Amino acid sequence: MTLAEGSPVREQTATAPASVVVHLDEGDPDKHASVLRNLRNLHAELTDSTIELVVHGPGIGAVLQNSPHAAELRAAITAGTTVVACRNTMRALDIAPGQLIPGVHTVNSGVAELVQRQTQGWVYIRP
Amino acid sequence: MTLAEGSPVREQTATAPASVVVHLDEGDPDKHASVLRNLRNLHAELTDSTIELVVHGPGIGAVLQNSPHAAELRAAITAGTTVVACRNTMRALDIAPGQLIPGVHTVNSGVAELVQRQTQGWVYIRP
Amino acid sequence: MTLAEGSPVREQTATAPASVVVHLDEGDPDKHASVLRNLRNLHAELTDSTIELVVHGPGIGAVLQNSPHAAELRAAITAGTTVVACRNTMRALDIAPGQLIPGVHTVNSGVAELVQRQTQGWVYIRP
Repeated sequence: MTLAEGSPVREQTATAPASVVVHLDEGDPDKHASVLRNLRNLHAELTDSTIELVVHGPGIGAVLQNSPHAAELRAAITAGTTVVACRNTMRALDIAPGQLIPGVHTVNSGVAELVQRQTQGWVYIRP
Repeated sequence: MTLAEGSPVREQTATAPASVVVHLDEGDPDKHASVLRNLRNLHAELTDSTIELVVHGPGIGAVLQNSPHAAELRAAITAGTTVVACRNTMRALDIAPGQLIPGVHTVNSGVAELVQRQTQGWVYIRP
Repeated sequence: MTLAEGSPVREQTATAPASVVVHLDEGDPDKHASVLRNLRNLHAELTDSTIELVVHGPGIGAVLQNSPHAAELRAAITAGTTVVACRNTMRALDIAPGQLIPGVHTVNSGVAELVQRQTQGWVYIRP
């Protein structure tokens, strides 16, 4: 099968490396897997970009050691993604820092982090 | 429990107060409660910021007087959040202005409002 | 019923035509219908704007010929919306170009397209 037939193939224009903040606040493990796939595709496509994943609310499940997708999350960190969890969520759900996958950062408010990154010029993606 | 052990704690950098538009178009009352929690955290963390919540589609349930979270919505308005409902949605769902929680504003198109705020430099958050 | 009673009606300020990229990655046909409604409202409200819909992941169902909302998708294209599907998703789900509704474009990575449009100054909407 060739992808060129039947639909116009558009080349993506080369751009300067971007800084991207990705928002995850859903609890469904399938959504977690899908967001981690998005991160891999971003790294592959936009080389030298800076990528940060912010999790809060039910999304925090994606960065816990008992996540079914913990291996992919560790791989994202190894690939250079910064992963940030919300301490407001941790307090509300009684999650101890030791439950987080090693290398996950924390900030006081995940949603404020998403605002601040954008005021610093980062691009926002909410899968 | 101390949040400092087991994960790197990052201080959020102080930023100038931001203008933030928050997008709600889902009908699930749990999502409404969660978005209202996000608004409280934004107010607490980013003092002196300007925050607007735009609801349309099934999200409009969050600003009706019979919403299970009407009290939190009123509190958000009291705290200074501007709340804006979509008149296209009101027409489609036959919702009268009197059904809205007092203090809720309306615009012709909620989705166009979200575009316009961003063209005015506002930051976009879609929980 | 007059919408002017019971809630403050705010006129939307006129703005220069915007360039808007709309993100769809959910598989629920009701969500597809709702996003297509959003596109119609954007076209009606923000005349002369440039609108692009990017679909990836389960959202790609919205641009397949067998979509229950294929007619509305065709109408969106006719109205001037550019529709872009993700080839990473097509490869993963084994979707051939011939299955796409005619006029749908493809790019290698839908999520990278969403980043690139924003770095080009486009406004991002994720219904």
